[in-house]
Amino acid sequence: MENELVTKLKEIVGEDWVLTDMALMESYLTDVTALPVLPEPASDVVVVKPADAGEISSILKFANEHRIPVFPRGGGTGCVGGAVPTVPGIVLSLERLDRIVEVDKENLMVVAEAGATLEKMLKEVEAADLLFPPHPGDEGAQIGGLVVCNAGGTRAVKFGVIRQYVKGLEVVLPTGEIVTMGGKLLKNNTGLDLMQLMIDSEGILGIVTKVIFRLYPRFAGSATLIVSFDDRHAAIKAVPKILQTGVIPLALEYVERDVIQISADHLGMRWPAQKGMAHLIVIVTGSNEDDVYAQSADVLKVCEGLGAVDILMADTREEQADILKIRSELYPVLKPQVADVLDMAVPPAEIANFLDVLDEISRKYRTRIITYGHAGDGNIHPHLPLELYERGVLSDVKHDIYAEAVRMGGAITAEHGVGKIRTKELPLCLDDKSLELMQGIRKLFDPNGILNPGAALP
Amino acid sequence: MENELVTKLKEIVGEDWVLTDMALMESYLTDVTALPVLPEPASDVVVVKPADAGEISSILKFANEHRIPVFPRGGGTGCVGGAVPTVPGIVLSLERLDRIVEVDKENLMVVAEAGATLEKMLKEVEAADLLFPPHPGDEGAQIGGLVVCNAGGTRAVKFGVIRQYVKGLEVVLPTGEIVTMGGKLLKNNTGLDLMQLMIDSEGILGIVTKVIFRLYPRFAGSATLIVSFDDRHAAIKAVPKILQTGVIPLALEYVERDVIQISADHLGMRWPAQKGMAHLIVIVTGSNEDDVYAQSADVLKVCEGLGAVDILMADTREEQADILKIRSELYPVLKPQVADVLDMAVPPAEIANFLDVLDEISRKYRTRIITYGHAGDGNIHPHLPLELYERGVLSDVKHDIYAEAVRMGGAITAEHGVGKIRTKELPLCLDDKSLELMQGIRKLFDPNGILNPGAALP
Repeated sequence: MENELVTKLKEIVGEDWVLTDMALMESYLTDVTALPVLPEPASDVVVVKPADAGEISSILKFANEHRIPVFPRGGGTGCVGGAVPTVPGIVLSLERLDRIVEVDKENLMVVAEAGATLEKMLKEVEAADLLFPPHPGDEGAQIGGLVVCNAGGTRAVKFGVIRQYVKGLEVVLPTGEIVTMGGKLLKNNTGLDLMQLMIDSEGILGIVTKVIFRLYPRFAGSATLIVSFDDRHAAIKAVPKILQTGVIPLALEYVERDVIQISADHLGMRWPAQKGMAHLIVIVTGSNEDDVYAQSADVLKVCEGLGAVDILMADTREEQADILKIRSELYPVLKPQVADVLDMAVPPAEIANFLDVLDEISRKYRTRIITYGHAGDGNIHPHLPLELYERGVLSDVKHDIYAEAVRMGGAITAEHGVGKIRTKELPLCLDDKSLELMQGIRKLFDPNGILNPGAALP
Repeated sequence: MENELVTKLKEIVGEDWVLTDMALMESYLTDVTALPVLPEPASDVVVVKPADAGEISSILKFANEHRIPVFPRGGGTGCVGGAVPTVPGIVLSLERLDRIVEVDKENLMVVAEAGATLEKMLKEVEAADLLFPPHPGDEGAQIGGLVVCNAGGTRAVKFGVIRQYVKGLEVVLPTGEIVTMGGKLLKNNTGLDLMQLMIDSEGILGIVTKVIFRLYPRFAGSATLIVSFDDRHAAIKAVPKILQTGVIPLALEYVERDVIQISADHLGMRWPAQKGMAHLIVIVTGSNEDDVYAQSADVLKVCEGLGAVDILMADTREEQADILKIRSELYPVLKPQVADVLDMAVPPAEIANFLDVLDEISRKYRTRIITYGHAGDGNIHPHLPLELYERGVLSDVKHDIYAEAVRMGGAITAEHGVGKIRTKELPLCLDDKSLELMQGIRKLFDPNGILNPGAALP
């Protein structure tokens, strides 16, 4: 990077907080995207670590004036290349804005800086005997990233996604202004809701520096059920029936036995369910033990009536943790053999049909597409194997899958976002006019197009 | 209205669906805003009642080309003049788009046209043994209006506001394009979220024609508690303590005894609580009777510990209905003596302080500001008496109240919206840059400024 920029950045944040040495910068140029589709990072970048919103404002004003691209960076836990700097510019790491400002027990809110990790925030919230309900998988994710990616995760079936918990933001706009949106308010209808626009904006409209989330009381108990079926359709058909009983599980995951076995084997652990080929993992939470058992009984009753061949219930903390461990290691275990992990959203009742379509596509391309996901909320993750990339048909397979999902009323990303690897695919599920409006909004916020170029929109 | 416009509209929707006779149009020119602040409607308007999104598109294309203002109209239940046509133009009533398209039990969604009333939708949802959780007060409100006003209501403390339930929209843009946003999807992160922007846009960005809402299972039982305190601060302090027990009530309302007595007297009914001056109305719902009693017991225990002087529990349907009837008639009963009903949002823990501030302001202006509201979510409705308007000090009082709310981190509208009577007041709680961005978004969607001019933004 040219000297003038580095000098200016050092002037703003201090000598110690600017990196130009490639060896030190390496970890700032990537994320957890599958390697075959990970975008190539530019080498001509500089990493800057501002201390606060004021310094970020100074950096953005300078960058805006000189038309220098800026790539905001959180925990680097995204899987669509959203934080990768694909052209020369500034990588702006939020890591020093890492304070949990306040856990406000009276208002049931937490105020956190954008660079604090989810792990850190959860610890402080739990210490106050409160609950942050959603749980996007990777606790190394940073708060700001969770918001601009509108993170999802397994608990969305009961608690919804991150959007539902965001009540206030502090944002530095690409033109340098520091603005606040919302506050410690549960209802707020003043003007157009720019805060909602910032959520899931993937770093193109502004840099989030502070977040206010709503909190809830902790739930007292939980149980994890593994319900086995011989048939995929039977398993998926049980999902709305479970939800119609009045029980809203914390999580309602679908996984096939031979797939979850891969993860168990890799970890040297035992997957407890040995019957059936299709499993639902149902986590039930309640206000006390009786409540948990009553809900579990409702789930069991419904599933038995629908042909479940086996039902296991884990109620100790350890048993439940083992099941979750095996489930949550699936992606890391499979990743070396994976070219791209898709993130399809379909109407929940269409999941079984969608899985059948994936089988058809597998047959067509003589491959195996391992698939599992959040059955309770219609979010499915097909894992496209590496060999499709090697055979040069990865895009074809992807387009077939997208077309089927869109035909069923689905979307090409449910929770991972568009990042830098799905921008060209966005027109498959959005009309031209909507894309034009999105581009217009981007231009309005960021007239010189400096913020995270190449991300979020075509 | 000039003849060419009327002829064109009749061509689009048919002879029968265009009104130009003032006697027939009268009910289309107003809403439920308090009379002293109700905007003056223009008399030179024409009312048009299109049958579907296609006809709305044709109307908007024509209006856009000829720069004719269009005022979209739902149930007319707004209380900030949002639907009042303040300049000559077209009043576009959604009343003929009144179908409940589908109650989808498998996906737990309802699809409704924008002009269907909340009442109609609730009936069909209940007939399917499902629940639409939020409950904005007036069931004559139409579905499209609920969405573009992001309606709130008493149940927000447990279930949040309308935004949380909107999963898909069909929208006609001011330039005539018909676009869909979202779908029967519980997670969707494709591009900037225009759907979230449409929610609470108060009719300035497009006309919503169809809505997909998420549904839930019905709750099995409920109880209504009236908890009495001698002191306002003691009552309000109990609110976070109740929420911290893990019980999230369906509603948690604050009302003072002498105020609720006005409504009871007017209705010739008996308000059951006769001790204390400050009441919390706590509605508890649960998955069965035991659960309802267990939650009620938790609430009672906390409130007794905090100095409650009396606690009444109503568990029959009739007793509960009586309490709600008296509470919900408060505004209609008070309305003839009211100049403006404010809709303040403050952090929930600040409510008692905010009520004290209102008392101070009452003393300063030698008046009485009756106040009650949704204590569980920080939404308070101060009723400014008619005599303040007659004395010419209404604006002064309002500005004092706004300034105090904003100082506490609040907002000038929690659920009613900006409409046409608070646009000039918006800069009191929004910064210039945010307003500039909102204006820019409006211009982007509606380049000729035809849609609901005078509403939502200054």
